Amino acid sequence: MESTVLAAADIGGTSIKLGLLSGTGDILDKWELPTDLANNGEAIPEQLAHSLLDRLKRNGLGKENVRGLGVGCPGFMDMDHGFVHQAVNIGWRDFPLKERLEKATGLSVIVDNDANVAALGEMWKGAGNDESDCLCITLGTGVGGGVIINNDIVHGTSGLAGEIGHVTVIRVGGARCNCGRQGCLETVCSATGIVRLAEEALETSPSITSSLRTLQGTLTAKAIFDAAKEDDALAKQVVDFVTAELGHVLAQFANVLNPKVIVIGGGVSKAGDALLRPVRQAFTNAALPLIAESCRIEEALLGNDAGIVGCAWLVNEKV
Amino acid sequence: MESTVLAAADIGGTSIKLGLLSGTGDILDKWELPTDLANNGEAIPEQLAHSLLDRLKRNGLGKENVRGLGVGCPGFMDMDHGFVHQAVNIGWRDFPLKERLEKATGLSVIVDNDANVAALGEMWKGAGNDESDCLCITLGTGVGGGVIINNDIVHGTSGLAGEIGHVTVIRVGGARCNCGRQGCLETVCSATGIVRLAEEALETSPSITSSLRTLQGTLTAKAIFDAAKEDDALAKQVVDFVTAELGHVLAQFANVLNPKVIVIGGGVSKAGDALLRPVRQAFTNAALPLIAESCRIEEALLGNDAGIVGCAWLVNEKV
Repeated sequence: MESTVLAAADIGGTSIKLGLLSGTGDILDKWELPTDLANNGEAIPEQLAHSLLDRLKRNGLGKENVRGLGVGCPGFMDMDHGFVHQAVNIGWRDFPLKERLEKATGLSVIVDNDANVAALGEMWKGAGNDESDCLCITLGTGVGGGVIINNDIVHGTSGLAGEIGHVTVIRVGGARCNCGRQGCLETVCSATGIVRLAEEALETSPSITSSLRTLQGTLTAKAIFDAAKEDDALAKQVVDFVTAELGHVLAQFANVLNPKVIVIGGGVSKAGDALLRPVRQAFTNAALPLIAESCRIEEALLGNDAGIVGCAWLVNEKV
Repeated sequence: MESTVLAAADIGGTSIKLGLLSGTGDILDKWELPTDLANNGEAIPEQLAHSLLDRLKRNGLGKENVRGLGVGCPGFMDMDHGFVHQAVNIGWRDFPLKERLEKATGLSVIVDNDANVAALGEMWKGAGNDESDCLCITLGTGVGGGVIINNDIVHGTSGLAGEIGHVTVIRVGGARCNCGRQGCLETVCSATGIVRLAEEALETSPSITSSLRTLQGTLTAKAIFDAAKEDDALAKQVVDFVTAELGHVLAQFANVLNPKVIVIGGGVSKAGDALLRPVRQAFTNAALPLIAESCRIEEALLGNDAGIVGCAWLVNEKV
């Protein structure tokens, strides 16, 4: 293994993904741990440190070979100080993550939120192709995002930037969102939102025959995109609506930020061209022509590795 | 005068505003020239250089006392090279502005577009209060904008960032915009758009009495805001609509960029609280609570000086 590596840890509510990466972002080693949620995640820093130092040793490396440790985690935090105000999925509240990890590992630590490190990973080594202006959106159970401008992640004034899932798309009568408001992009373009829209369409249009009826109650976004590919009218109607809204919203942000590339990740992005083609069409219709011409819309490439790659970028650029 | 100054020139289609500023952004001297539009603006660099060098001499200064010249101008350009692809109001096409100005003045020159230098000026010494994350919008004949993130202006991949005037707000049946598309924010919130909305309301609601009827054909945005303050029902309806749309759009961008301050400038902003209060209300309704809490919406403070102050910032930070 190389003599200097970047250490990375992407902490989630279920597992911690760890990695050792080269200075150019190649993954040299990677592994996972189940997240120790006991005592509101109190022991996570020690758990993580133990595993990391052990793995270094097995690779014939010591702390002196590690440039630093980049960490992604969910929740609301002060990135400058690596201080987590609240991470509901883990149990942390006012948790000095950076301080605790530096003590436990003896390494320099830099912390950012999980959506941002995933965006940085895709920007650096994924579909973003190392472009300095890049918008990333993740369509999963919810909708998250990360904004990269002038080759750096945008945190905003209180670390909350990137909440593209809570842009309002249905201004009147939109579905209730987890954030407590109505009509957010997340209610339309998340996997959950797409399923809800199909369930609603099945109920309100009983006369339309649809292969989705046999799946009612167990519908998935994948099944809906698959049915749309088979020309199922009801599924097509849902996909048309979802992709039109997504393309429209992305165009609004492109008009103001003029990104080189927009990367769409998360489970829903697995639909590939069935998602991307109509999104690109709606985007082109709503963006200024010169803006649309200079912006690609791509499917994310790194999957679950995006987080650790972004953590390594943070070490490379900021430690 | 101080021994080292920042030179600034904000070039418009009618006049060139020039200034000498201190390193802390105080205006030490300022003056204007009528823009020499002869021969498609061919002589502007020499005109500008002559006036600037003359003024320096009158202040007892030479080139050696000038840190550099910051320039703002309208049009589509490559900021990195100060090369203007097209500036319709001036006549330039493929005009190497930076190169020509450096030759004519003997100074280091940095060029950006007029909306961006105005935004930088407001950020530095105006309502932006030197905050590192700041969104500026100008409501004039059209609607322009500038986005400041991580203490730098956002250019985007092809220099087109900031086009908040061309965000679509009326998705079906919106008025035709100068950009060729329909329903842009500019068709609703520019001075022109506000007047159009009032003229339309006067036509479609002949039964509503309104003091604006006597002004039909000579309406201004100012008259409409004034009438709204006097409880004119029709004027209030227009103002309610315009401010609701503007607050809504600003909230969408705040959700993604989490700015500390949003500065509203341009002629329409002179309406002051009659504009700001309902915009803030609509903004708070549509933004995530933590985003809304951490963001102020303010009226621009520098008026026509914003451009030269922003030009000076460019010299200070980038030359």
